[in-house]
Amino acid sequence: MLYIPMNSFGNKFKVEIFGESHGQCVGVTLDGVPAGIAMSVEDFSIDVDRRRPSSKGTTSRKESDIPVFLSGVYDDHTNGNPLTIIFKNENTRSQDYKNLSKHYRPSHIDFVASCKYGQFADLRGGGAFSGRLTLPLVAAGVVAKKILQKQLERTLEFNSNIISVGGVPFGQHEQLLGDAMKNGDSLGGIIECSVNGLPVGLGEPFFDSIESVLSHLLFAIPAVKGVEFGAGFHAASMKGSEHNDPIISHDGKTKTNNAGGVVGGITNGNQLVFRVVVKPTASISRGQMTWNDDTGKVESLRVKGRHDSCIALRAPVVVESAAAIGLAQFVL
Amino acid sequence: MLYIPMNSFGNKFKVEIFGESHGQCVGVTLDGVPAGIAMSVEDFSIDVDRRRPSSKGTTSRKESDIPVFLSGVYDDHTNGNPLTIIFKNENTRSQDYKNLSKHYRPSHIDFVASCKYGQFADLRGGGAFSGRLTLPLVAAGVVAKKILQKQLERTLEFNSNIISVGGVPFGQHEQLLGDAMKNGDSLGGIIECSVNGLPVGLGEPFFDSIESVLSHLLFAIPAVKGVEFGAGFHAASMKGSEHNDPIISHDGKTKTNNAGGVVGGITNGNQLVFRVVVKPTASISRGQMTWNDDTGKVESLRVKGRHDSCIALRAPVVVESAAAIGLAQFVL
Amino acid sequence: MLYIPMNSFGNKFKVEIFGESHGQCVGVTLDGVPAGIAMSVEDFSIDVDRRRPSSKGTTSRKESDIPVFLSGVYDDHTNGNPLTIIFKNENTRSQDYKNLSKHYRPSHIDFVASCKYGQFADLRGGGAFSGRLTLPLVAAGVVAKKILQKQLERTLEFNSNIISVGGVPFGQHEQLLGDAMKNGDSLGGIIECSVNGLPVGLGEPFFDSIESVLSHLLFAIPAVKGVEFGAGFHAASMKGSEHNDPIISHDGKTKTNNAGGVVGGITNGNQLVFRVVVKPTASISRGQMTWNDDTGKVESLRVKGRHDSCIALRAPVVVESAAAIGLAQFVL
Amino acid sequence: MLYIPMNSFGNKFKVEIFGESHGQCVGVTLDGVPAGIAMSVEDFSIDVDRRRPSSKGTTSRKESDIPVFLSGVYDDHTNGNPLTIIFKNENTRSQDYKNLSKHYRPSHIDFVASCKYGQFADLRGGGAFSGRLTLPLVAAGVVAKKILQKQLERTLEFNSNIISVGGVPFGQHEQLLGDAMKNGDSLGGIIECSVNGLPVGLGEPFFDSIESVLSHLLFAIPAVKGVEFGAGFHAASMKGSEHNDPIISHDGKTKTNNAGGVVGGITNGNQLVFRVVVKPTASISRGQMTWNDDTGKVESLRVKGRHDSCIALRAPVVVESAAAIGLAQFVL
Repeated sequence: MLYIPMNSFGNKFKVEIFGESHGQCVGVTLDGVPAGIAMSVEDFSIDVDRRRPSSKGTTSRKESDIPVFLSGVYDDHTNGNPLTIIFKNENTRSQDYKNLSKHYRPSHIDFVASCKYGQFADLRGGGAFSGRLTLPLVAAGVVAKKILQKQLERTLEFNSNIISVGGVPFGQHEQLLGDAMKNGDSLGGIIECSVNGLPVGLGEPFFDSIESVLSHLLFAIPAVKGVEFGAGFHAASMKGSEHNDPIISHDGKTKTNNAGGVVGGITNGNQLVFRVVVKPTASISRGQMTWNDDTGKVESLRVKGRHDSCIALRAPVVVESAAAIGLAQFVL
Repeated sequence: MLYIPMNSFGNKFKVEIFGESHGQCVGVTLDGVPAGIAMSVEDFSIDVDRRRPSSKGTTSRKESDIPVFLSGVYDDHTNGNPLTIIFKNENTRSQDYKNLSKHYRPSHIDFVASCKYGQFADLRGGGAFSGRLTLPLVAAGVVAKKILQKQLERTLEFNSNIISVGGVPFGQHEQLLGDAMKNGDSLGGIIECSVNGLPVGLGEPFFDSIESVLSHLLFAIPAVKGVEFGAGFHAASMKGSEHNDPIISHDGKTKTNNAGGVVGGITNGNQLVFRVVVKPTASISRGQMTWNDDTGKVESLRVKGRHDSCIALRAPVVVESAAAIGLAQFVL
Repeated sequence: MLYIPMNSFGNKFKVEIFGESHGQCVGVTLDGVPAGIAMSVEDFSIDVDRRRPSSKGTTSRKESDIPVFLSGVYDDHTNGNPLTIIFKNENTRSQDYKNLSKHYRPSHIDFVASCKYGQFADLRGGGAFSGRLTLPLVAAGVVAKKILQKQLERTLEFNSNIISVGGVPFGQHEQLLGDAMKNGDSLGGIIECSVNGLPVGLGEPFFDSIESVLSHLLFAIPAVKGVEFGAGFHAASMKGSEHNDPIISHDGKTKTNNAGGVVGGITNGNQLVFRVVVKPTASISRGQMTWNDDTGKVESLRVKGRHDSCIALRAPVVVESAAAIGLAQFVL
Repeated sequence: MLYIPMNSFGNKFKVEIFGESHGQCVGVTLDGVPAGIAMSVEDFSIDVDRRRPSSKGTTSRKESDIPVFLSGVYDDHTNGNPLTIIFKNENTRSQDYKNLSKHYRPSHIDFVASCKYGQFADLRGGGAFSGRLTLPLVAAGVVAKKILQKQLERTLEFNSNIISVGGVPFGQHEQLLGDAMKNGDSLGGIIECSVNGLPVGLGEPFFDSIESVLSHLLFAIPAVKGVEFGAGFHAASMKGSEHNDPIISHDGKTKTNNAGGVVGGITNGNQLVFRVVVKPTASISRGQMTWNDDTGKVESLRVKGRHDSCIALRAPVVVESAAAIGLAQFVL
């Protein structure tokens, strides 16, 4: 049985993520970054902060999350060599996770990692499955946006927001979230991301379509269970005459945008828009009845450790970063 | 501006699709197929037939769709070399498409292909964007299933069905479809696909997750605009205590299956299940007002040619094939 | 044990070769070919003819070798889709090869293919190891040269010649070759290939150096056992003061060219020059004592079939094609 | 003009090298390393020491070269996640290189890097072209050997030695080397590497042949200008009856080994043997007449800094590591 993880993505702009949540650091090596792009530690602060635990419903693990450039930057500019960025793990509490391996947490990787990696599975804090690996993904997104700006000679406008939490519109969710936290439970959410300013022609029919490449990256984000573009699943209920987007000017602008800015796998110049569903966190502190392989019985389990009650709240910038990385593939 | 299509997918099991709808043939080259697998023309008939136009709402183009092995088969078995299969295009009517290029069909590739490929765009019958390219994809799926059977030493059980058309449950859609056809309109649909018998441990965390690889392939199918696994977008409304799937036995069997058989990007031994939305066909015969780049005005357009009223009706086997191709990546 | 051949190469310009010497055809699928390049059957005749058996020392198998475009060409121009070209195998004599499988031909693939592929090994005419697969490689080279011309906006000057046969300078080899043929033996040779007109800057340090990519392709040609650039192995005997190429003008022109036009893995604008050694054909008709796995003894073997006495004589265009394919990787 | 370096190699076992000679560190990320392999800092000392400057003719830069595991190791064993190893750069003297950029050093990367990367070229100590990047390559080789041992369930025997320096057999070169050092000149050399214990069947015909993959890696080593397998370039002077290796037993053992252990791109169970030529160091301290782009004239240049007089002396372990990395591709 193969047990060989591949944590790299990309063809012209390669992204290789490494690190463990409770290891020394997490990081990313980016290959294919053109030389001459301004790059400094400050460039990462906005998006890294958007990801930080700070609001109600997110965990209490505090990290400074300052990026360190191990290679690829010289005189505050990329030099064309592989760009390796790491983030040290400062605030780890390994002991929270030691005794979970055989009493399998529902919808968590305990069981599958146990089968796949055996005794050498590194499950500390989720190991390589951890949400902490979304930090280097965000860093890669920052670089991807710079690449897009350089190659397209314009700044794209990214917007990524949670539109619903626990089934209710964002903004009306506070009560629901408070209840979940009190009950040791968690909530899911939907993020909508849009990109303005894309030129016509990015993407390829079939295997290198915009949707294929972006969904590949989006589904790599832990906890994502669905991706849709434009009208998405709602298109199933629409007639062609309703779903079609008539073109109203020479530059391809459409009257409606049910396609979400992508037709035949290729950007058509209109706003790229897609939605992602983030499942409710599997690690909940309320008791769950689940198999214990040490005793051979279904028993009650209480998950310790620090966990978000709604990881969707931290996901918008991660989703945006994934989109940027995907789009960067098409401009190099 | 780059305009270089890549029609290949895969790492250990490579799939390279080629051909045009109104060219000589469509075909696929498969690399990485182990030697010794029984392979004959008859093995393709069931799945190819499932794809054929035969029911109400699908087009009248008749093709015999007999596969021809150009390489890779010797004595009715694969010989380990690249396996190239072609299907001749017999029933083409090029003239249906000649005068569409500048009067852009809404939600079709006319505009984007015009910008991207210029005067050399081959739009005959949709060119490389055509649904006809799903035929070699289905052929690749047949081979993929054989690879899965050989490597896993068991036959997986694939089920792929349309669960809704035009927003109503399949089976109750006939009236709706009849109306659409009468009105020169089209309908969308949702396909649900499940796979029984997968072992635990296929897939990798992050970029090579089951969801990432499968969605990459699913979104390559023309007209697919959304993919979800397990509870999918419904998970957004569920609490963790509801969405979590407790494990109830030593082999990882879960009580519920909201994860859709995939946890942390890896199969957990339960049924793999996912859903795909197919948008309503863009080519509808009723009039549409859309930009005409020859006159510089929005004008009425009537699309000629043969078009499905509901392409979702032909999609189940294509979706299943894409899933098989994706899963085969993980067993080699 | 894995036994999965991969017959594809390339990143931006992908080359996938398929077919068997004694199968229906040999062919190649090229992905990443820009649209708008003039492409017709006549474009292939010069290089295909250079490869044909026609001179003393080459085999008598006659094929018309007319390329057939299965996809990717429309109106005599590439349309940007995958370009699939096949060559039918007309003149096959399978029976020449039937009884060789267990009485292993020295320095031939019988033994290794037997171990690796077992009973399904397709050794007819060498199967996928056959020199006939150099024909689609040459076709890919024709396309590669067109890509180079389009992207660089100039025609590169390729020269590829045998400089020695059987250890003596080409031109003085006739006697030696006549003797070898009379004795049922074979000779090796050295090919030197040069390319004029390359710009500065193609290639990358380390893994995507010009030498790495070109040697990867050159060693894929059957019978190649060595590759050297510039002064090559002679550099081992040179001092730095002798081997160094001083730059004598603003455009990087050097006084000498021991580097062979590549420094640090990157073209420096001077002539690219390299040499390749082609071993003497393994299939010789004179008797050889070798292991017979049917009898468990070393026994005399006489190889039948049609074989070149000096395959190096046919190699120059193949070497040139490999170089073109490699260089094309760097201009897309 | 593209200027995008790709420093990664590999398919199942991926090697991504990063860092600059005069940057913070050099390192490598290895993807595809199976879990459960014993891994500690001590495992690297032998091969890292073999690379160290210590003998006559090698530079005086002293580094401790202690590997640091940033990820992928837990409890002294690989955990299946990407393995990132770095080596800090301790002993850098940037000022040695500041004023060389426009007075182009012959056979060095100054000119090409200047054209390719412009003002952002990082030429400190050779930047990404530096021999220091062979250190992470050696580290990758240590891991590759462990992978080979685990997958093949045996320890392969690697031998890598310089067989000639400056054109004379190693051992008789001392005088020649002393003279070169006195004269501020340098010498080239040839390294021969052999591997015992390989099973039959590794490698693939055509593009994934043993020779293709190994040469790709070998030519990535700075200063390598030629690679040959078995009899190599000498095969050009041999007849088939001389070059052929008759098989003398059931397990494929051959009487001679002119093939160097590889036939048809696949290992045949006999000793793998190949040779590599390392050119004389381009950086010599004696004066050279070369173009100065600041003055627009050919002028005398004296290269400062620390430089080996014979870099071939340090290359054997690097060559061996490249071979190990290449072979590891075939056992996963």
